[in-house]
Amino acid sequence: MASAVRMALCVLLFVSGGTVVADPLASWNDGDTKRGITAFVDAVTTEGGKDFVPQSDRIAVFDNDGNLWSEKPVYFQLLFAMDRVKALAAQHPEWKDEQPFKAVLEGDMKALAAAGEKGLLQLVMASHTGMTSVEFTRVVEDWITTARHPKTKKLYTEMVFQPMLELLDYLRANGFTTYIVSGGGIEFMRPWAGRVYGVPPEQVIGSSIKVKYEMTDKGPVLRRLPEIDFIDDKEGKPVGIHKFIGRVPLFASGNSDGDLQMLQWTTAGDGPRFGLILHHTDGEREWAYDRESHVGKLDKALDQAGDAGWTVVDMKRDWRVVYPD
Amino acid sequence: MASAVRMALCVLLFVSGGTVVADPLASWNDGDTKRGITAFVDAVTTEGGKDFVPQSDRIAVFDNDGNLWSEKPVYFQLLFAMDRVKALAAQHPEWKDEQPFKAVLEGDMKALAAAGEKGLLQLVMASHTGMTSVEFTRVVEDWITTARHPKTKKLYTEMVFQPMLELLDYLRANGFTTYIVSGGGIEFMRPWAGRVYGVPPEQVIGSSIKVKYEMTDKGPVLRRLPEIDFIDDKEGKPVGIHKFIGRVPLFASGNSDGDLQMLQWTTAGDGPRFGLILHHTDGEREWAYDRESHVGKLDKALDQAGDAGWTVVDMKRDWRVVYPD
Repeated sequence: MASAVRMALCVLLFVSGGTVVADPLASWNDGDTKRGITAFVDAVTTEGGKDFVPQSDRIAVFDNDGNLWSEKPVYFQLLFAMDRVKALAAQHPEWKDEQPFKAVLEGDMKALAAAGEKGLLQLVMASHTGMTSVEFTRVVEDWITTARHPKTKKLYTEMVFQPMLELLDYLRANGFTTYIVSGGGIEFMRPWAGRVYGVPPEQVIGSSIKVKYEMTDKGPVLRRLPEIDFIDDKEGKPVGIHKFIGRVPLFASGNSDGDLQMLQWTTAGDGPRFGLILHHTDGEREWAYDRESHVGKLDKALDQAGDAGWTVVDMKRDWRVVYPD
Repeated sequence: MASAVRMALCVLLFVSGGTVVADPLASWNDGDTKRGITAFVDAVTTEGGKDFVPQSDRIAVFDNDGNLWSEKPVYFQLLFAMDRVKALAAQHPEWKDEQPFKAVLEGDMKALAAAGEKGLLQLVMASHTGMTSVEFTRVVEDWITTARHPKTKKLYTEMVFQPMLELLDYLRANGFTTYIVSGGGIEFMRPWAGRVYGVPPEQVIGSSIKVKYEMTDKGPVLRRLPEIDFIDDKEGKPVGIHKFIGRVPLFASGNSDGDLQMLQWTTAGDGPRFGLILHHTDGEREWAYDRESHVGKLDKALDQAGDAGWTVVDMKRDWRVVYPD
């Protein structure tokens, strides 16, 4: 039996040279954007070529919100926090009269917006901390497999971008390690990033709160504390990349000014580098927004793209489909 | 030519079943310790077996100081810091009269010890911060390839433990990902951990100082700030493992009470887990120390090993050789 397996493997090895391979980027329309990506990947993977890069240095980093999945009307993690506040409200009668909780419970988005960043932080701390890491993972898993988007009524994991799933697969098939580098919470993404994106927990980088090791009578736990540990956004992204990966990526993909420094840091590296910016231009199939948007504002990075040689994806023009079927 | 390569691969595939494989742990004497390690690895890698663990979950974590290399008379990173202070002294005439710098410049180890933890922190900040990440890496690389240990006169990278190098290789050959989880500085280890241990930068976890992203006229840099970011020791080790890896390891290897919580956290996980403690019992070939040692104190973890089911390596008894030839 083992011999038969080895023989089959040999046949495969001999045949593969002549096989016609399906387009790995089938959801990308033909054009400069797609050609630019495949030309870059060909260049860095062609052994003996002047731009060849060994597999261990083929690091690709991807922003998540608005880049691998949608981010409208607000970051999905904020919708998660609001759902958690509603679920926990019975244990917190005081929230009925306290902002920003009152706004969430009454569905008053104006009052919520008025609470500003401080209010958002309060929501995150109330919904994301106090429990153990294992308990929080379970809460996220429950939510991500049942909660639905207010407009599309899809599961949030059905609002990932099919062309980006293909790009992740394509890069991995070419020896890249694909990391998520997101301003979102690292523990909010890890429970489902493997299943949905094929990105294992150790390749998810994000913002974090502090945790504390505690020995309980049931064994050790990590308790989630209401204190910010690290903000993986803007100037924080190169810091996070350096901290977690310790190498300069070869390929960076983002969609907002929160990704500007990650794009600068990546493409300032020696040798061939690739910067990709997703421009949300498709108000029919997804959303159209850039310079004036409260969520996913794309302004400076768009201005710098030309001089920096970054490739700008025009969602409407470059993508054959947006979401998976 | 490609066909010839494939044919050679086929031959290898056919022959490997009958080949006598050299002992991957040749520097470990036969006995319970070695048998325990190989029995565990066999159990978690045997498909269909009750203890089988998929490759993606085969995470092994290793302390560095005193576990992968020696740590006497003091942590090698402290010797690095002292060498740096001497090298930088000409730019800091005030150090001649200021502790703990005066102690370093005069080789007064008693005064240095008296400066305590605060003094050590001052040495680390003076020697490890201010420069960019790239500049610091270069300094470490220069030092690690030229500096010699005060007693053995070996390069520090020649004072790594041959049996542990074999254990790292053996685990990787069995589908494990091997991480370093050290109280030492992450940026002090990364420049040479790949070459010496086969552990790439993204699998090195350690203590860190804060860095700041700066745009200069020569491009972006990460500036090293004189501020602690994270201490990856004791209770910090499970926190670091959770932050960087996001999974509970299958295998943990340490040598001191600084590894106690990492061992607890690892072996409290569900299913088969392995805890390994290196006991320095060999005053002739290396050093003999445990409960009373200032560096690498092993006391509580030794007490808990029996009940916890951790395997204690007796260096003198279990290792055929200590350092590579």
